[in-house]
Amino acid sequence: MTTTPPPRTVFTAEDYRARMARAVDAATRAGLAGVLVAPGPDLAHLTGYTPPADTERLTLLVLTPEREPVLVVPALEAGEIAHATGAAALTLRDWKDGADPYALAAPLLSASGRYAVSDSTWALHLLGLQRARPGTSYAALTDALPMLRAVKDARELELMAAAGAAADATYEEILTVRFAGRKEREVARDLAALLRHFGHSQVDFTIVGSGPNGADPHHEAGDRVIAHGDMVVMDFGGLKDGYGSDTTRTVHVGEPTPAEQHVHDVVREAQRAGVEAVRPGVACQEVDRAAREIIEEAGYGDLFIHRTGHGIGVTTHEPPYMVEGEELPLVPGMCFSVEPGIYLPGRFGVRIEDIVAVTEDGGRRLNTSGRAMALVE
Amino acid sequence: MTTTPPPRTVFTAEDYRARMARAVDAATRAGLAGVLVAPGPDLAHLTGYTPPADTERLTLLVLTPEREPVLVVPALEAGEIAHATGAAALTLRDWKDGADPYALAAPLLSASGRYAVSDSTWALHLLGLQRARPGTSYAALTDALPMLRAVKDARELELMAAAGAAADATYEEILTVRFAGRKEREVARDLAALLRHFGHSQVDFTIVGSGPNGADPHHEAGDRVIAHGDMVVMDFGGLKDGYGSDTTRTVHVGEPTPAEQHVHDVVREAQRAGVEAVRPGVACQEVDRAAREIIEEAGYGDLFIHRTGHGIGVTTHEPPYMVEGEELPLVPGMCFSVEPGIYLPGRFGVRIEDIVAVTEDGGRRLNTSGRAMALVE
Repeated sequence: MTTTPPPRTVFTAEDYRARMARAVDAATRAGLAGVLVAPGPDLAHLTGYTPPADTERLTLLVLTPEREPVLVVPALEAGEIAHATGAAALTLRDWKDGADPYALAAPLLSASGRYAVSDSTWALHLLGLQRARPGTSYAALTDALPMLRAVKDARELELMAAAGAAADATYEEILTVRFAGRKEREVARDLAALLRHFGHSQVDFTIVGSGPNGADPHHEAGDRVIAHGDMVVMDFGGLKDGYGSDTTRTVHVGEPTPAEQHVHDVVREAQRAGVEAVRPGVACQEVDRAAREIIEEAGYGDLFIHRTGHGIGVTTHEPPYMVEGEELPLVPGMCFSVEPGIYLPGRFGVRIEDIVAVTEDGGRRLNTSGRAMALVE
Repeated sequence: MTTTPPPRTVFTAEDYRARMARAVDAATRAGLAGVLVAPGPDLAHLTGYTPPADTERLTLLVLTPEREPVLVVPALEAGEIAHATGAAALTLRDWKDGADPYALAAPLLSASGRYAVSDSTWALHLLGLQRARPGTSYAALTDALPMLRAVKDARELELMAAAGAAADATYEEILTVRFAGRKEREVARDLAALLRHFGHSQVDFTIVGSGPNGADPHHEAGDRVIAHGDMVVMDFGGLKDGYGSDTTRTVHVGEPTPAEQHVHDVVREAQRAGVEAVRPGVACQEVDRAAREIIEEAGYGDLFIHRTGHGIGVTTHEPPYMVEGEELPLVPGMCFSVEPGIYLPGRFGVRIEDIVAVTEDGGRRLNTSGRAMALVE
């Protein structure tokens, strides 16, 4: 998944400098010697820099208490970095093709330090560092410092809310298009066009699962022609001004049967229960449990086959995870999805999803479009 | 970079089974206990399977001599794999959200084995394996088994040649469009449309560097308006039927000056020398040296600021690398770029690139469009 950095006007070099300083503080408090960040959403979040491509050429941000932030970068790409807002806060160490970039990075690391390394750092690069500095050890960034990107500040929350409002507007508009007789991928294209129309620069997914396809939560959108009488799961989102949206609604083409309506009612109630469980200090798994309990009590427990939610921010899919076993406590400023579902193989599926931001005393939905089952044509 | 798997009609489950068996053999010969492959081009090449997204959920192909190939996969995505041609050759081990996928993978690894792991495997996953099997050790796949994907078989070479021919056709057509007075990104869009017209399913890059922008080899395409008298570097490619193209030509808007013509002549001669150095048994670095020597003798050595080439196959950018220090010998069936350049900061750049396949007794260019400096309008 690629990310688009937020527009230059929103965050300043000082903002990025402060974010990097907070990362160093968090690492120190966790007993780590520093944070190493390869290209990806963490690098974009900490520096505003997104390299042209994520390749076998090492780009690595080295954050340690001993020195100002250093970016190890291929000489060929050094020119690109000047365009990043956070560049003013970085010292560049560039290396040319044929040089050993791990040998260049090694002296920036203490001989026996333990470092957090961004999750999607290539194994090639991690092994290179382990080889160049055999005494060091490493932990994945989301294991070691799961809160680093999870808690959004006020300006980030504004951007998250704006992305959510754009997804809501997309949903309101899609209710006016024709469903029956059109292929899933045609409706998916409509969703993508609407997301862009309402300001998204990047569309990450536009799932349209009609009839039995709705029972596969990872079905994307295919050639099935939507028919009168179908349930249709629509799950769509992407990035607007660098921050993510992710919304699901399940609609019906024509009147639902009582059984279909019942399943939808159960999911809607589970989603409500999940959102109501959100407040500071509650463990992530409690959000999952609250939603799951409703579905289990209704007898569909075995058909809710995924976790209840995932974090969202500069990507549409990140920690924290609302899943059994995740004991991290919620903190004001965290944003994540609450998206229970019931999947009846061969028949249909229902999922309802909003993004929720943790407030000082509860949770605020960033999606406010109707959750009642809309009837479409 | 994403990859598109080749069409199902080209390779069979038996082909994938044979590729996986060759990988196990190569690992055994190299003293390794097996090969571990996360989502990416290696997984697509070995199984025909490309997951919907490369995420924090572990998908891992485990190839060892002890058992048939196993794919560890998130339960949610198990349904997707049935669509992959190589699925028939795989045993699936699925895991549900909340389970520990590394604990599931650990018993598939010997307690103290050394494994090759695909380069772009997330650090999160490598660290998970290191934690679940502390006695194991790892090497990056391209370090340990650089030849695994590098040598193409006859059908793969046909697909590479077809992708090259499509890029050649794209170049012939672009010579007929208007350059002067249009923005670089408009010409870039023309290139992308032509690549798709000639059968590419994916466009990876369409670099258009006019005038001084041509002197930055990683410049992509911007708002600069191309003017009469400009040199224009065009570097474009992507995937056609799952195999890559990558071609560069440098053209001139109107008549060049003698100095511009001279630089172009030097690069063309260097490119010819690089291609002529290609034959089985020669070290990769010799291709770089042959091209570089011509440029150094002409006094431009400091202005050739990148390696001479990179491998290409199911991605547009992979080992082997034609770079000083790379002593790997060339083998028939390898495909790579030969792309020397000269970059005069603030003035212009020239680069000429063909894909070359190693034959039994030399090298065969897969791009045959004219390398003389074309004059455009």
